[in-house]
Amino acid sequence: MKSFRKELWFEIPLRRAFVNITGQVETCLRESSVKEGLVLVNAMHITASVFINDDESGLHQDYDKWLEKLAPHEPISSYAHNRTGEDNADAHMKRQIMGREVVVAITNGKLDFGPWEQIFYGEFDGRRRKRVLIKIIGE
Amino acid sequence: MKSFRKELWFEIPLRRAFVNITGQVETCLRESSVKEGLVLVNAMHITASVFINDDESGLHQDYDKWLEKLAPHEPISSYAHNRTGEDNADAHMKRQIMGREVVVAITNGKLDFGPWEQIFYGEFDGRRRKRVLIKIIGE
Amino acid sequence: MKSFRKELWFEIPLRRAFVNITGQVETCLRESSVKEGLVLVNAMHITASVFINDDESGLHQDYDKWLEKLAPHEPISSYAHNRTGEDNADAHMKRQIMGREVVVAITNGKLDFGPWEQIFYGEFDGRRRKRVLIKIIGE
Repeated sequence: MKSFRKELWFEIPLRRAFVNITGQVETCLRESSVKEGLVLVNAMHITASVFINDDESGLHQDYDKWLEKLAPHEPISSYAHNRTGEDNADAHMKRQIMGREVVVAITNGKLDFGPWEQIFYGEFDGRRRKRVLIKIIGE
Repeated sequence: MKSFRKELWFEIPLRRAFVNITGQVETCLRESSVKEGLVLVNAMHITASVFINDDESGLHQDYDKWLEKLAPHEPISSYAHNRTGEDNADAHMKRQIMGREVVVAITNGKLDFGPWEQIFYGEFDGRRRKRVLIKIIGE
Repeated sequence: MKSFRKELWFEIPLRRAFVNITGQVETCLRESSVKEGLVLVNAMHITASVFINDDESGLHQDYDKWLEKLAPHEPISSYAHNRTGEDNADAHMKRQIMGREVVVAITNGKLDFGPWEQIFYGEFDGRRRKRVLIKIIGE
């Protein structure tokens, strides 16, 4: 069994954003030389997500608006977590809806994807350095 | 390490439905002859889910009603994504709540499940051919 | 390829609670002697979650309040599932938002975690005995 590990680093200048990281995961897969196996891609921070969906800017606007409706950033004082001095309780909620991680099948050395699947980093509390972990196992 | 791959195809005649696919995953597991490992089951489309819950029709009605409350299909014009000519932005939201994939342990050649766990395909934008991927790795 | 399996048992005296199980997962990882691989941690029951987030009591209060807003326990009669004699339909909803499982990378014999990542059991219909499965594969 082979294994491969890499971290991707981000410093998003906004509070919230979605970044397509499919190409970076594919590069790791080539470096790993794994032909059959699984790749785990996960946020290493608890106010960020990794998820798979469509690379369409209108959809990303919709996600942002929808997540703000389900878990509004303000009023900041409405969250007990923010009494610790943070203002990011909403980001911990948004991350649960969008998810921490994805697991993707590797077949013939490629990400085994449907026609529109793309991997995104979802940032909900940016303006600081944060990481994504890519772990590949297989043969 | 062994690996096994199979696609399941669906063409759901309604916009939304839940389909129990546990038996089909078990058939794949027998074909794979893997005794210890992991099985990944994921939607290959971004307006559909694979999730694990109870096979109880009342619960499925509740899920449908609840998802419509959290991410209503209409008004269609309320979503920026639908300006592309689609009417399925809500389906991209519903899929994030229900999830893209499940990873299930394989122990002694069986799905290592609790008493009520069943695997479902969740369709949120049907009336077209769509796929689920089953990938098994182990020994 | 090595594999390791263990069940954790819980009997939470309240309907809802969050329990940090990171130490128990680390103990399993040491017992498995796997140095490179993946660990799957999943609820074996369909009204409970396993998720990764922060061990901060204010945040856990916020999660509880937020999940009650998105999927209220009452009125019990508002859910079709509860006509079966259950009163836990809301727990099946809450579990979908918080998720069934996490997959964590194992690197150099350790959980490959960011600075604040902790693994939690999320109970949404307690006062009965329930289980979490830990499955480790790797080398």
